[in-house]
Amino acid sequence: MKERLTIIKVGGKVVEDDTSLHLLLSGFVSVPGKKLLVHGGGRSATKLAAKLGVESKMVDGRRITDESMLEIVTMVYGGLVNKNLVAKLQAMHVNALGLTGADMNVISSVQRPVKDVDYGFVGDVEKVDAAILSDLINKNIVPVMAPLTHDGKGHILNTNADTIAGETAKALAPFFDVVLMYCFEKPGVLRDENEDNSVIPSLDYSEFQHLVAEKIIQGGMIPKLENAFIAINAGVCEVIITSHTAINDIDGTHIRK
Amino acid sequence: MKERLTIIKVGGKVVEDDTSLHLLLSGFVSVPGKKLLVHGGGRSATKLAAKLGVESKMVDGRRITDESMLEIVTMVYGGLVNKNLVAKLQAMHVNALGLTGADMNVISSVQRPVKDVDYGFVGDVEKVDAAILSDLINKNIVPVMAPLTHDGKGHILNTNADTIAGETAKALAPFFDVVLMYCFEKPGVLRDENEDNSVIPSLDYSEFQHLVAEKIIQGGMIPKLENAFIAINAGVCEVIITSHTAINDIDGTHIRK
Repeated sequence: MKERLTIIKVGGKVVEDDTSLHLLLSGFVSVPGKKLLVHGGGRSATKLAAKLGVESKMVDGRRITDESMLEIVTMVYGGLVNKNLVAKLQAMHVNALGLTGADMNVISSVQRPVKDVDYGFVGDVEKVDAAILSDLINKNIVPVMAPLTHDGKGHILNTNADTIAGETAKALAPFFDVVLMYCFEKPGVLRDENEDNSVIPSLDYSEFQHLVAEKIIQGGMIPKLENAFIAINAGVCEVIITSHTAINDIDGTHIRK
Repeated sequence: MKERLTIIKVGGKVVEDDTSLHLLLSGFVSVPGKKLLVHGGGRSATKLAAKLGVESKMVDGRRITDESMLEIVTMVYGGLVNKNLVAKLQAMHVNALGLTGADMNVISSVQRPVKDVDYGFVGDVEKVDAAILSDLINKNIVPVMAPLTHDGKGHILNTNADTIAGETAKALAPFFDVVLMYCFEKPGVLRDENEDNSVIPSLDYSEFQHLVAEKIIQGGMIPKLENAFIAINAGVCEVIITSHTAINDIDGTHIRK
């Protein structure tokens, strides 16, 4: 029998506010068994960019990453957010190790080809080195992964954190019983975005498509759920969309095959 | 017999200029045997601070690190400089892993007590986890260490890169035959700072004290050499102060017991 591994992805809003970060980390520490954290940091990047007079351009919720923006996300995701999370986890006796995809070549990617949009230095994940990650995890090291990968030619690439979480979950599924949780500031996928108690308790792919067609599910939730369905179909045991305050509950939206 | 480990420390000026960085990395890649890189990044931190309207205050060449400056060095050292070095080394088929002291708790420190000067969030190294580092090195992973440590209470601390190199060399001396190289833009310790061919080929502690008294050695070179003598007296096989272009030569200033 494989051991359980909980992969938790938290968005920028959660890690950038002291109160929500504290709630998240308290929950994370008490998750039993092996674990891995993937974080965002977009809001801090946007804030630093504004201070530096660099414009943040987004297309479909994805950041256009020119050279100045790449420097900013490398600093914010790989430095500020990642290292503060690692230091805070160490203080809670979790043996955290901050990683980008470049570190030990854990995630390599290819720069997204220019089609309608030139996203710049944005990476599409090519390969996750599951052997190295599972070796670390089996030594009770907790990888804390920043949304940055590399192209193997010397360049860091900005990479969507939801995708990193999904691809990492898929790659580790042969080694562990993987539970993947997408945590954000809402209690799950909502039927009515203004109504926190309208959580959809479970969702299969045809229901998802139906809700997208009805525009009940929209925006950034669509690629997040696409990642979730890819993961559940690739051998991940459970995928849950939930709040950062509820990672030890059974609430949230459970994704079904 | 122990295997040889070369620990190379490079200063900000070298890593922040594309040409000198390229020369350094080409040399680093061809160093035979096990290796570890420690980097600075002070000039980039000062530049970013200026852009953000944060004043850089230095006392005896050491940076006063208030909360804003801590954010800046965490971004620049832990993110920008570290991750770009890692990505460049990976492209040269060196299996680099970027680390701060917080990662896997490799270097813990205590915040420097306030005496004449309040340095703020600056750490004095307390413990280097040589077991974890030697385990990585023996797997042909090349640690790339940023000048940041942590206090075990959730805070990153700004820590002098020369000290990190010296303390890491000392801690690893029981496991490897350690050669410690301090690389910078000059060819060694100079008798005349304006004359690159005035390198002092070797130096023992009494000669060093004599040259300090004569003001031939001054400024930032004094703490660098203090670290060098501490290392050589603590079991490090060789300590060399040399240029980033000469890490495979026998030039530079060799420190004697």
